[in-house]
Amino acid sequence: MTSPKEYILRVTCPDRFGVVAKVSTCLNDSELFILDSAHFGDPDTNKFFMRVKVISPNKNFKYKSFEKKFSLIANELNIDWTFIDASIKPRTAIFVSKYSHCLQDLLYRESVESLPIDIKCIISNHPDLRKIAKSYDIPYHFINMKKNSKSVSEAKINQILNKENVQLNILARYMQILSKSFVKKHYGNIINIHHSFLPSFKGAKPYQQAYSKGVKILGATAHYVSSELDEGPIIEQTVDRINHSMTPKEMEIIGRDIESITLAKAVKYHVEQRIFLNDGKTVIFN
Amino acid sequence: MTSPKEYILRVTCPDRFGVVAKVSTCLNDSELFILDSAHFGDPDTNKFFMRVKVISPNKNFKYKSFEKKFSLIANELNIDWTFIDASIKPRTAIFVSKYSHCLQDLLYRESVESLPIDIKCIISNHPDLRKIAKSYDIPYHFINMKKNSKSVSEAKINQILNKENVQLNILARYMQILSKSFVKKHYGNIINIHHSFLPSFKGAKPYQQAYSKGVKILGATAHYVSSELDEGPIIEQTVDRINHSMTPKEMEIIGRDIESITLAKAVKYHVEQRIFLNDGKTVIFN
Amino acid sequence: MTSPKEYILRVTCPDRFGVVAKVSTCLNDSELFILDSAHFGDPDTNKFFMRVKVISPNKNFKYKSFEKKFSLIANELNIDWTFIDASIKPRTAIFVSKYSHCLQDLLYRESVESLPIDIKCIISNHPDLRKIAKSYDIPYHFINMKKNSKSVSEAKINQILNKENVQLNILARYMQILSKSFVKKHYGNIINIHHSFLPSFKGAKPYQQAYSKGVKILGATAHYVSSELDEGPIIEQTVDRINHSMTPKEMEIIGRDIESITLAKAVKYHVEQRIFLNDGKTVIFN
Amino acid sequence: MTSPKEYILRVTCPDRFGVVAKVSTCLNDSELFILDSAHFGDPDTNKFFMRVKVISPNKNFKYKSFEKKFSLIANELNIDWTFIDASIKPRTAIFVSKYSHCLQDLLYRESVESLPIDIKCIISNHPDLRKIAKSYDIPYHFINMKKNSKSVSEAKINQILNKENVQLNILARYMQILSKSFVKKHYGNIINIHHSFLPSFKGAKPYQQAYSKGVKILGATAHYVSSELDEGPIIEQTVDRINHSMTPKEMEIIGRDIESITLAKAVKYHVEQRIFLNDGKTVIFN
Repeated sequence: MTSPKEYILRVTCPDRFGVVAKVSTCLNDSELFILDSAHFGDPDTNKFFMRVKVISPNKNFKYKSFEKKFSLIANELNIDWTFIDASIKPRTAIFVSKYSHCLQDLLYRESVESLPIDIKCIISNHPDLRKIAKSYDIPYHFINMKKNSKSVSEAKINQILNKENVQLNILARYMQILSKSFVKKHYGNIINIHHSFLPSFKGAKPYQQAYSKGVKILGATAHYVSSELDEGPIIEQTVDRINHSMTPKEMEIIGRDIESITLAKAVKYHVEQRIFLNDGKTVIFN
Repeated sequence: MTSPKEYILRVTCPDRFGVVAKVSTCLNDSELFILDSAHFGDPDTNKFFMRVKVISPNKNFKYKSFEKKFSLIANELNIDWTFIDASIKPRTAIFVSKYSHCLQDLLYRESVESLPIDIKCIISNHPDLRKIAKSYDIPYHFINMKKNSKSVSEAKINQILNKENVQLNILARYMQILSKSFVKKHYGNIINIHHSFLPSFKGAKPYQQAYSKGVKILGATAHYVSSELDEGPIIEQTVDRINHSMTPKEMEIIGRDIESITLAKAVKYHVEQRIFLNDGKTVIFN
Repeated sequence: MTSPKEYILRVTCPDRFGVVAKVSTCLNDSELFILDSAHFGDPDTNKFFMRVKVISPNKNFKYKSFEKKFSLIANELNIDWTFIDASIKPRTAIFVSKYSHCLQDLLYRESVESLPIDIKCIISNHPDLRKIAKSYDIPYHFINMKKNSKSVSEAKINQILNKENVQLNILARYMQILSKSFVKKHYGNIINIHHSFLPSFKGAKPYQQAYSKGVKILGATAHYVSSELDEGPIIEQTVDRINHSMTPKEMEIIGRDIESITLAKAVKYHVEQRIFLNDGKTVIFN
Repeated sequence: MTSPKEYILRVTCPDRFGVVAKVSTCLNDSELFILDSAHFGDPDTNKFFMRVKVISPNKNFKYKSFEKKFSLIANELNIDWTFIDASIKPRTAIFVSKYSHCLQDLLYRESVESLPIDIKCIISNHPDLRKIAKSYDIPYHFINMKKNSKSVSEAKINQILNKENVQLNILARYMQILSKSFVKKHYGNIINIHHSFLPSFKGAKPYQQAYSKGVKILGATAHYVSSELDEGPIIEQTVDRINHSMTPKEMEIIGRDIESITLAKAVKYHVEQRIFLNDGKTVIFN
């Protein structure tokens, strides 16, 4: 005997009255019962976003027949939508350089099933973190970016991602700038952790920048990668207090904890399909 | 010309599939369009809670005809419900003793319209804070509880509340225990601020208790008053860090800020009709 | 009978070994006993900072004779120093425009003696907040800056500050840029609250900027005013969470609480003589 | 060539004037220069606590001669003291049961040198976490406490601790109650993480307790173990927000992060010798 399946319906459309009623009625007519729902209409962009988690107690639920029904409203209301089994874990690639804390944290969370991702490979411009990958039995691909041009390196990366059918890319302190074409190809599926409270301290050495500026609070920012450096839509931010006596090195050690936690939260929102892109910003139902 | 009116519908019923769809369809049929909605089914109590904020663009909207329609579903699904104009500010009484910070804060927030309450009277067992009341032109009722018995005092209070048609009672550091009958009469409409992180440090002198225990974090808890002392359903909690060098007096000064903020947040949730009582706990849609 | 007096000694000098021992021995020799002390040597600027709170149980303590003794070490170690009665409240001017929350908060804290300042006057480029000033019996000076040039306006302000012998200037959401000469004259004695997490969102309308950027955390920054706009040494920062559904107006309301608290904390550190300027940054012993 | 050595001097004595001056002069006389110092006199217990970090630029520094000098003041002022090389990492045992998050976190922090401990062994009443121990090459001792009595089990544990010369015991979600004699023997050297905001929710299943109570904030508490269950001196506490929709299981997952961080911070304070026991409380210089 199997337990009833859960699905997540995501809806984006021009904002107008009546969408909630029509969507929920259609779900009801298909014997898909709402467990959880949230919606938001942005008065600026005039877009409407909705996420509904449903359960199908009917074992004979047919996606095809639901699709048919829902397409009618979707056409009428100009809806972009997805309807995905809530239990699916996205096939994930993690990109790293030399820092291990975020990688370690993600691998651990996957292993104890507190983060529903399926890590298929680790990609790095350094060989240093191979040992950690091995301890979790995940393939580790070292791409020598000093020897290869960016386009050759990224071609190799794309080959790996293709082979593994990767759906989500996590930059876990990956210290390489991705090309515009790479970012464009994977837009919305690359999450980066930046070790500052963006938009403060973009670019290199944010802890040094924070130290020089004498700020009293450190931050970390998880965001989707866009073609502008450290400018993509922000998903999650976390902060911690610092003081005048701390060196940039000590700030970095404090920062590691908030980097790991911020990145893990952002990934969780993403895989639970809670995030919608809304021009340069995010709508997150959490 | 008037702008369209907003209403809040609150629904409580036994948890079952299909409620969201039926409620939203009924709203839609009455030309009440959903701006914001949230719901929760508690698997423990098997209760379902829903809050919907709607807008009525139709100037000729008739509550009577909506009531008729909605009563049909309400009967079918065994729904307890209210439907109230979202712009109404509850007529409010504030109870105080000698500490002024929460009173001052509530009066200020009302005056700059960041907290939608309508303060009709201030009730106190001390004459001390009369001056503040006066500066905001609010009647101040000093009830001498040393001279009067609790039942006589509470009778006087109830008289004032009746006369002013009070809908919400805020205990803003009111250092008197209310009788069971008083609490029962106003249950769900009395919000208290307790100056500790409940359930730690119930009863008197929580800062002294926190000091003696050597905790590293102070808390404040806003809750509905129930007949058990400091045991009613928790609405909001806030904390701040302390350390070994602080005296109970210094903790108290730090505590004032979190008391004021926590109480104001709880009141805001209440007046925006975001809180549902769920046995001894609260469900809050925020 | 009077209780023994407390003083605060502040020391700044080139960093070198032995300062703590020499200073504490000299205090001991003068029968000034250490209640609290803190020090910091900055490896970057090579400066040493020390704050010592002492008590003088000797009723016949003579400042002159202490001064004589301490000057010897001060000369030897090239120390800049002050030695001030810890109970003195600085004569304070508050500068406001139209927003009242920080002003209200400072007046209230002074009145309940949780903030040891002595507010002598309120200066504004608008007449709006006169009523609040009156309710606390503080002179309110409206300077019409539309009619007067900046130099004329600031001359009037300086006249008031001189007359009242003001030692500390607090910009409590004062929406005017001070001239370089005014800032230079009062440098280290002007504290401003900026309604963003600096260095993010300098300049005008930071809540609008935060909204446009889609950040997930709001901040407020109290800092000393320098001649560069929103660039002076940071004293204190506080943050609060926001989300996609909040308008700039709602962010502003949330922001008020952290602005008030951040400014009050910064002022407290200043009047307790806990802050040292260290080039463009602050050293704070708290 | 070796860099100059750093030491930490810890002082506890009856509170009285002049201790700071005498101690710092003695250090100065021994050519031990103060890098960092902090002290606190508790008016309740009348005890004085002081921690001084010093550097010895003199290569020929002789501990014996310093000891001789310092003993003179120590005798005069009735000082309990230690003077330890700041670079020494305590030999540490970690106690676990089935939950791995704190263990994993401590092992990782040791490996990247962000936590200066030297983990010599892992002791458990379950065999489950052997694999993690192995991946870090740390001996794992499974003690079958169902087959052995508490006294036999603890005798085995003491044997291991003796053999490894263990100085610090960390209970990283170890779900066994230690005997009074074991606790007494190691008092001040056993740090436990309790998964609630003590004194709330002592004993078993704190997340279930928090859920039942409907609190809005979860906590974790690191404390020294005393003979009373969950009653020992509190070292560090951390909190995170929860809401009505979370199950005890979800709270537990959120709780893991704050447990790991809180325990790591407490251990850091301990190994940096920042913590003093002050009756049932702690004084922490951080």
